[in-house]
Amino acid sequence: MNEFHYFDNAATTKICREALDEYVNISQNHMANPSALYSEGRQSKAILTSSREKIADYLGVKPSTLFFTSGASESISIVLSSLLWAKRSGEVIFSSIEHEAVSSFEGLLREKGWKVNYLGAKGGFVSPDELEARITPDTRLVAVMAVNNVLGTIQDIKSLVKVVREKEKEYGRSIFFFSDCVQALGKTGFSLSDLDVDGASFSAHKINGPRGAGLLYLKKGQIQVLSHAGGQEGGIRGGTENLPAIAAFAKAVESLKIWDEKKIHGFNTMMRLALADSKMKILSPDHDTSDYILSLSSPLPSEVAIRMMQDKGYLVSSGSACSNNARGKAEAVFRAAGLAPYAGGAIRVSFSCDNTEEEVRGLIQALKEL
Amino acid sequence: MNEFHYFDNAATTKICREALDEYVNISQNHMANPSALYSEGRQSKAILTSSREKIADYLGVKPSTLFFTSGASESISIVLSSLLWAKRSGEVIFSSIEHEAVSSFEGLLREKGWKVNYLGAKGGFVSPDELEARITPDTRLVAVMAVNNVLGTIQDIKSLVKVVREKEKEYGRSIFFFSDCVQALGKTGFSLSDLDVDGASFSAHKINGPRGAGLLYLKKGQIQVLSHAGGQEGGIRGGTENLPAIAAFAKAVESLKIWDEKKIHGFNTMMRLALADSKMKILSPDHDTSDYILSLSSPLPSEVAIRMMQDKGYLVSSGSACSNNARGKAEAVFRAAGLAPYAGGAIRVSFSCDNTEEEVRGLIQALKEL
Repeated sequence: MNEFHYFDNAATTKICREALDEYVNISQNHMANPSALYSEGRQSKAILTSSREKIADYLGVKPSTLFFTSGASESISIVLSSLLWAKRSGEVIFSSIEHEAVSSFEGLLREKGWKVNYLGAKGGFVSPDELEARITPDTRLVAVMAVNNVLGTIQDIKSLVKVVREKEKEYGRSIFFFSDCVQALGKTGFSLSDLDVDGASFSAHKINGPRGAGLLYLKKGQIQVLSHAGGQEGGIRGGTENLPAIAAFAKAVESLKIWDEKKIHGFNTMMRLALADSKMKILSPDHDTSDYILSLSSPLPSEVAIRMMQDKGYLVSSGSACSNNARGKAEAVFRAAGLAPYAGGAIRVSFSCDNTEEEVRGLIQALKEL
Repeated sequence: MNEFHYFDNAATTKICREALDEYVNISQNHMANPSALYSEGRQSKAILTSSREKIADYLGVKPSTLFFTSGASESISIVLSSLLWAKRSGEVIFSSIEHEAVSSFEGLLREKGWKVNYLGAKGGFVSPDELEARITPDTRLVAVMAVNNVLGTIQDIKSLVKVVREKEKEYGRSIFFFSDCVQALGKTGFSLSDLDVDGASFSAHKINGPRGAGLLYLKKGQIQVLSHAGGQEGGIRGGTENLPAIAAFAKAVESLKIWDEKKIHGFNTMMRLALADSKMKILSPDHDTSDYILSLSSPLPSEVAIRMMQDKGYLVSSGSACSNNARGKAEAVFRAAGLAPYAGGAIRVSFSCDNTEEEVRGLIQALKEL
């Protein structure tokens, strides 16, 4: 791999030294299956337990509410496919800026007789008033992500949950509030325990942890799953636990404590100021938005701009790299936000604490030269 | 971890040096998301492609039929949950010795109006004649594992598939034949391309590869999934690809070529001969059974025997360690095989090529002393 400056940390991050060392350590020294009855198996089980406790401690929730999965997409799938057990179909409400891992359940749910309604996101934000107007006695689930992966907008989850809780009282039925928190973890003064959501998803590889490890938070510690398979993770997620990745995930979470908000805020401000009088349009709002994601639009088509930036040694994305049709998905978010005309030229910059001020200055220069 | 002799390779295996080195190499040098548009992303994509090609080459199938998953349980779940798309419920036929990852779908399928029928497995083997008698015009799927994880019995998948193909002609409807091949890969002169199954599952961690990597084979290269999420793996399994684990999986498969059948056959024969006149009963049949799994029964309760063996430095299992209720599951297999009276004292020994003759001699001695 050539030398490059990496500004695509919302797509994935490089695993940190502590997490990779832990992966290797567990692989070499704790290879026993956590379900095995002998002492080495119990040692593996103990590592699983302490990994869960470490992350629960960071998130301020009980360990019994956390379930390890293979990633956020699987965490989301567990929650949405639980609807298939319902005796009667109902309604779900998704924000119109959800990740495809959420929105692509629309097809199956409609096929099974469910109504799938979408909340607008003018300017990149979902409105509690609109949610209030849309909930009906048939609403069973609401999904709104905590931080949007394209624009970085921070949703007012607390107010949205409050609306749902009031409607629950009014209708005497429970409504599951799910929030995909992948882009929030460790980056926005995010606190899960403050939000009062019923479920949330997290991914290790977005926070310098390993690929293939994710987390599902369930306030009640349970949900009906398609199948419990081998019964691991309390029956919520069967399959031999990916212990090296889980322990590495816990290490990555512990390392998160050094996330430097000030530094990232500095980068974001530098870019906004420097590009204010350029041909670039800043698409990410300047309020209630994570400093770590900054979406811009250049007069060039995204693909062309991204390749030109790559030639200069700067890796940026077209909006969302989580999908093989990244541009299409980012376009949907821009459309919902009222930024459709800029979608074709969109560039997403996403920082990490490993970036330096010098790199950001170089990035600005390269963007100006486009 | 103390010194021990590991004879629980059907539960999990230690990752081999080549695979762990590759995991570290990819994590450090190819961290870009395979979906990213820049050249580092394309390099990651190329590693994904070559990993798939290497495994396809080993299995003798087209790369376009292979899909990476987080493990065999997920591969199985993708196939069984695809039934939920059916406009009308029908029947499925499972063998009565399937892994829980298959059989635990019974609840959901019944809830959705499906009939779930089971094939007997007298002596540990599923009979093609019984399958023929059970298939009806409503049968949509048949699942029979290639090698049983408790007894090691090798199922006659070719004959079973032949029955299904004839019934397909008779009824003018397709029937999906699925085979969980987790315990077969690399260990029994197994050849996927010979079997003519419609789908098959594999796991990396059972062949000295990493945890968190599995494979789904689909003869037609497609299946209807609950949701395509980010669209990765041809839409069959969305979510950021676990590239380090996938590349390590490919390395483990390449290393499989040195699997020494003769050596393992020698271990198995040594044990059978040495224990023939002991208080141990050999439960694994002496024909059409993988040498690498040997189930026995001692007069002691399994848990007691396993702890006593552990104290002597030998790690063996009670039947199946893939589950938090391992003994219960193994019991179901023993019951189906007509070995119920021996289930309570069952001990499963499963070898690897890392075991030595001296270790096996020690294992025999320890078993005799029980």
